[in-house]
Amino acid sequence: LIIENNILKALTASFNRSPSQRNMLLESDAEIIRLRDGTFLAITVDSIVEEIASGLYTDPYLIGWMTVTASISDLTAVGAKPIGILLIENIPSEYPADKLQLIQKGIHDACCEYGTFVLGGDTNSSYELQMGATAIGIIEDENFISRLGCQEDDLLMISNPMGLGMGFALTQLFYKQFNIPYLPTPKLIYGQLIRKYATSCIDTSDGFIPAICNLIELNNMGFAISKEFDDFIDKCVLEIAQKTNTPNWFFLAGPHGEFELVFTILPSILNEFLAEAVKIEWTPIVIGNVIKKPGFQYAINGKNIILDGFTISNLFGQSKGDPKTYMDALYKMHQRWELQ
Amino acid sequence: LIIENNILKALTASFNRSPSQRNMLLESDAEIIRLRDGTFLAITVDSIVEEIASGLYTDPYLIGWMTVTASISDLTAVGAKPIGILLIENIPSEYPADKLQLIQKGIHDACCEYGTFVLGGDTNSSYELQMGATAIGIIEDENFISRLGCQEDDLLMISNPMGLGMGFALTQLFYKQFNIPYLPTPKLIYGQLIRKYATSCIDTSDGFIPAICNLIELNNMGFAISKEFDDFIDKCVLEIAQKTNTPNWFFLAGPHGEFELVFTILPSILNEFLAEAVKIEWTPIVIGNVIKKPGFQYAINGKNIILDGFTISNLFGQSKGDPKTYMDALYKMHQRWELQ
Repeated sequence: LIIENNILKALTASFNRSPSQRNMLLESDAEIIRLRDGTFLAITVDSIVEEIASGLYTDPYLIGWMTVTASISDLTAVGAKPIGILLIENIPSEYPADKLQLIQKGIHDACCEYGTFVLGGDTNSSYELQMGATAIGIIEDENFISRLGCQEDDLLMISNPMGLGMGFALTQLFYKQFNIPYLPTPKLIYGQLIRKYATSCIDTSDGFIPAICNLIELNNMGFAISKEFDDFIDKCVLEIAQKTNTPNWFFLAGPHGEFELVFTILPSILNEFLAEAVKIEWTPIVIGNVIKKPGFQYAINGKNIILDGFTISNLFGQSKGDPKTYMDALYKMHQRWELQ
Repeated sequence: LIIENNILKALTASFNRSPSQRNMLLESDAEIIRLRDGTFLAITVDSIVEEIASGLYTDPYLIGWMTVTASISDLTAVGAKPIGILLIENIPSEYPADKLQLIQKGIHDACCEYGTFVLGGDTNSSYELQMGATAIGIIEDENFISRLGCQEDDLLMISNPMGLGMGFALTQLFYKQFNIPYLPTPKLIYGQLIRKYATSCIDTSDGFIPAICNLIELNNMGFAISKEFDDFIDKCVLEIAQKTNTPNWFFLAGPHGEFELVFTILPSILNEFLAEAVKIEWTPIVIGNVIKKPGFQYAINGKNIILDGFTISNLFGQSKGDPKTYMDALYKMHQRWELQ
C-alpha cells in the first residue's frame, strides 16, 4: 500500500463527508461537488513546498509556472474547465524583488497558457519561500471521471511519453552537466476528451509508477504493461539515461512527475477515441491493459516480471525526502533485480 | 494608505482579471464569481503562518479551529453559505502525533460549528508547522455585498464588542498572568442577514482599526465613531486593560483580530434590520456613521479627534512583525498623543 495514503486516511478519519461531494478520499485528482443546477464543481489545492526546500526548483519563473500548473493538472485529470485560481504565497521578507517579479511572471504566463485567471489569494511572510494554489473548475455535464472505475481488459493509456519529471530532477540535482527543459503544460482539452471516453484517469504529478499504484490500490485491479519502458520514455530523458548509465525505470519512479495523464479505456471505443484525439492534434499511447490480479506486471524480453511498484512509490518517503538517500535506495533495488 | 495593500497591488499588477469575477482586488473579503445559473461562488484562502511562527498560537486545537475559522469568516462577511473547505497542512516530520490529532480535532469541531465539511486538501512535509484553508461558498441570489458601497450618513455598525483578538495576543505574549478565552466563532447567519441590508461589510480578522482603514481606502469615505471605545470593547478585555494599565485603543489596533464584522447600513432601514436581528438572538451595535471627508474621527470627551488609523495599521509591518517592537511603537504613539 501507499504509505502516504494511509497518513492521509489517518489525518482525515474524524472528518465528516459532505453529502454534495461525489468522490471519496483519494478517489479523484480534484474534489467533485454537485451544484444545485446539476453541474459539478472541481476544486483542488497543491503546494510547491518540498520542491523548493530540496533545491529541485531554483528558477523563480519555474516556481511561478508550477504553482499554477500543479493544480491545473488536477483539473485536467477530471476534465474540468478552470474558473480560476487562488494563490498562497509565503515569502521571506528579504526575498529579492527581481526574483519575486519572475515568480509572478511565471504565474501570469501559466494562467494565459491555461486560459485562466488569478482570482485572489493570501500572502504571508515566512522563513522559507513556499507557494500554493487552489484551482476551481466546472464540469458542465453529468459525465465525470475519477481515478476509480477501470475494469478488467480496459486498455491502459498515457497522454504522452513519460519521464520528464524525474529527468529534470536527476539533471538538476545530480547530473548537472546535462540539462532537460522542464515546463510541463497539461492540456485541459485532453482531459475533457478523456472524461467522455475513459473509465479512470489520474495525473502523473508524482510520477508514472506512483500513478499506476494509486489506480491499483483504489480499483483493486492489476496493470500489465506490454510496451517496453524505452518505448514510452521521453527521448531526451532516454538519451541522458544512456549517457549516465542510469536504469530507465528510475525515470518512472517518481516522486517528481511530468504532469501527464494515465487513463483506462474500453477496447471497443479505442478507435473512436483516437479519431477524436487526432482532431485536436494529439496521439495518446496504449501501453498495456487492466488485469484482474492486483499488481504491476511488466513484460520484458517476452517474460512477465512483477514490479514492486508500491515499494518504489514509498521509497522517497522512507528516504526522509532526501534525494541522495533516495538515489542510493533506487540503485540498491536495481542491483537486487539484476541478481535475480 | 495601507502598505500591505500596495504590496498586493504590485504583486498582482500583471495578472489579468476574470470576466466572471464581480469584485476587484481588495474589494471583498472573498472573491465573488458569477456562475452560469446566476448564483455566485464565494471563494477565499487564508493561512495560519505568522500566528504560529510568532508563538501567538501554541495550542494545537486552536490552530486547527482557526485554520477553518479564518476562511469561514471571509465567507461570513460576504453572506455566503459554505460548500466546504480544502486544507493545506505543512507539517514537520517530527511533529508529535498527539498534537496533530488535536489540530485535526480543532478542524473537525470548527467544521461542525459552521455546518461545513473538509472536501480535500494537500499535505506537505515542512520545517515549520503551517496551516491554511480555502473555503468555497454559494450566494444564492443576486444580492451580494463587499467592502465597497457605503455612502455618507450610513450608520457604522459592529456585530459584537471588539478587542478579543488583541486581548488574547497581549495576554498570550506579554501579560501571561492573565488568560482570555479565545475561540472566535463567526456567525454565518449574521452575514446572510447583513448581506440583505448593509451597504458594505468587512471582517475584523486583522483587528478593528485596520478594518475601518480598509473601508476608508476603498470607499474614499470617512468614519466618525461616536461611541466611546470603552463602550464597545469586550468586558473581559477592558478589565485586563485596566489591570495592566494598557491604553484601550491598543485592543482595536490589530493585527490580530476577533473575526467579528464591521458594516454600514442606511439609517432608514436600521429598525427593520434590528428587528430581524432580534429574531436570530443577535444585537448588533451602532458605533458611528460615514462622513464625506476620508479619515477616522473619534469623539472623545465631547471633542472630535482625528485618529491616524493608517499609521496604526502599518505599525506591525513596520515593526517587521516582531510583537515586542510593535508594543514599543504603540506606546510611543500613545505618549505623543498624551503630549498633545
